[in-house]
Amino acid sequence: MASLTKSYLDLINDCDRFPYDHPFKPPGDHWTKIYQFLLPEDPRPHGFMLAETVKKMPWTSDFVIDHETRTVRLSPSQDKGDLSISCTTALSKLVQRAIDEDTFRVIHRTHSEAYPIIGANFPVSLERYGSTLFGIISRGAHLTVYTKTASEMKIWVPRRSPDLFTYPNCLDTTVAGGVAFGEGPFECIVREGDEEASLPEDVIRNRVVHCGCISYVGLNDPKGDGETGLIAPDIMYVYDLELPENMVCKQNDEEVKEFYLMTTDEVKESLAKTEFKTNSALVMIDFFIRHGIITAENEKNYAEIIARLHRRLPLPTTSQQGHNC
Amino acid sequence: MASLTKSYLDLINDCDRFPYDHPFKPPGDHWTKIYQFLLPEDPRPHGFMLAETVKKMPWTSDFVIDHETRTVRLSPSQDKGDLSISCTTALSKLVQRAIDEDTFRVIHRTHSEAYPIIGANFPVSLERYGSTLFGIISRGAHLTVYTKTASEMKIWVPRRSPDLFTYPNCLDTTVAGGVAFGEGPFECIVREGDEEASLPEDVIRNRVVHCGCISYVGLNDPKGDGETGLIAPDIMYVYDLELPENMVCKQNDEEVKEFYLMTTDEVKESLAKTEFKTNSALVMIDFFIRHGIITAENEKNYAEIIARLHRRLPLPTTSQQGHNC
Repeated sequence: MASLTKSYLDLINDCDRFPYDHPFKPPGDHWTKIYQFLLPEDPRPHGFMLAETVKKMPWTSDFVIDHETRTVRLSPSQDKGDLSISCTTALSKLVQRAIDEDTFRVIHRTHSEAYPIIGANFPVSLERYGSTLFGIISRGAHLTVYTKTASEMKIWVPRRSPDLFTYPNCLDTTVAGGVAFGEGPFECIVREGDEEASLPEDVIRNRVVHCGCISYVGLNDPKGDGETGLIAPDIMYVYDLELPENMVCKQNDEEVKEFYLMTTDEVKESLAKTEFKTNSALVMIDFFIRHGIITAENEKNYAEIIARLHRRLPLPTTSQQGHNC
Repeated sequence: MASLTKSYLDLINDCDRFPYDHPFKPPGDHWTKIYQFLLPEDPRPHGFMLAETVKKMPWTSDFVIDHETRTVRLSPSQDKGDLSISCTTALSKLVQRAIDEDTFRVIHRTHSEAYPIIGANFPVSLERYGSTLFGIISRGAHLTVYTKTASEMKIWVPRRSPDLFTYPNCLDTTVAGGVAFGEGPFECIVREGDEEASLPEDVIRNRVVHCGCISYVGLNDPKGDGETGLIAPDIMYVYDLELPENMVCKQNDEEVKEFYLMTTDEVKESLAKTEFKTNSALVMIDFFIRHGIITAENEKNYAEIIARLHRRLPLPTTSQQGHNC
């Protein structure tokens, strides 16, 4: 059976799937039904919810739903003194109710780590699984570890465990993790670098280079597990680590099945065959651009690819006061 | 006199100035009067022209102006067999007329090198000065040369000649130039590297790393010379070159006054004091991001800055057939 191969732009289209024209007047019925999620005393939307989600959610009295303006406003009924506490508590109660009633498959009937609402005017968190239903910006940190042999560059690529909820058996970035509430993306890499690839903390702290971030607006897809079509704005902070040939990455927890040291041609081939986790493919493409493997001379969609890898998200990423969780 | 200092995001706002909401329905009268520039047999706009420009331009019979749809369509009256030749000829005749009649200051009553219309379905060119009036995407190539001493990184920064039309005396990228019709951005760097910084061709070909591109939509400003408020979409291809401490950059033509080997702190300070050419400041910011000098931990607008440095242009960058000039 001949397998379909994908271009770099195809891979980006698979990941960055939300329409560009206008978030509230895009073509098609699906998108005209989006609800904006609002926080108290802030006119800016912090998430985009599907009408189906709004309909199914076991709302508490802390939320005001307006079907005319298509908004869900968090308006805590208690503890108005400290919005940080009252909003986090209200969101937590709602998630607990959704767990108890088993309303959504993406929640997996279980609690998950706290994620911040990054553009909020005060620190506020929501559990990871719950935040996907609200279409809030999630953040990940991705480290690409590579080595330069005499003849070429090679990249450390793990295969995900077959037991993971999402993207089982797919290839992935060397080290990656979700950035939790109160954590900086670099600290996430320090933590995950040991857990996932047995990389010593001092090696990470002394040699890793911060290289920017990738941003896109995904729609969660059938390869994931749970509701589909949820709007998933995401920021992936990217880091590089060059290791000498005598240092290796090896699995250290149950999330990674095994590590391969792949040539860039092998990575290209695996990308084309969609063997990578959807958003990790973008990290590889960005790495190839920054290291001169993809160039304006060998890729006709160069400018388009680079712009799409750094989408300006339709939600704020800093507070109105410049505060940043 | 205390000087006003600018943040990185301020510097980007100074450069990427076209509204984001919607190119044809932005706030304010100015933007609602924009004309789209169209090529034959292609529904996609390839430029944005101001109403004042459309009014003043000494149009020939090769152009159809429609004030109702606010479009200027190039529709060559001759040689319909080869659109590449007939369109380039029509644009050339128009520029000649604007030179003869001294219609626009930005044309400087002189011819300039041919620039491509990069998203066109066939090869077509227009002179550099003329293309700014049509609001066509221009392309530049920017090389940052740096060296690592025992203690820190230093960057080679030239000061522009006081005699240049645009941005006299400003600081600039180590090597930069406009990418002409039929030239690749890397070849532009090879050519300009020798002309501007005395960098040998083999050093550039063997050691320069292609690192991506920056994109923004500027409005030409009073520091430039000529009409103001013209819409200026731009792609800057960025390259890095690490040199050993014993190799230096030195001026080789009249465009550069002198070179400085600056610490990153000195570059930061010069950026804040707006001593850099407006778009070259963005090249420095992008370099700082890729080299871990600006990080998510030390810059609250990190995600916003990175998205803004890679704006998806409102004009096509490849042909409908995937052809690329």
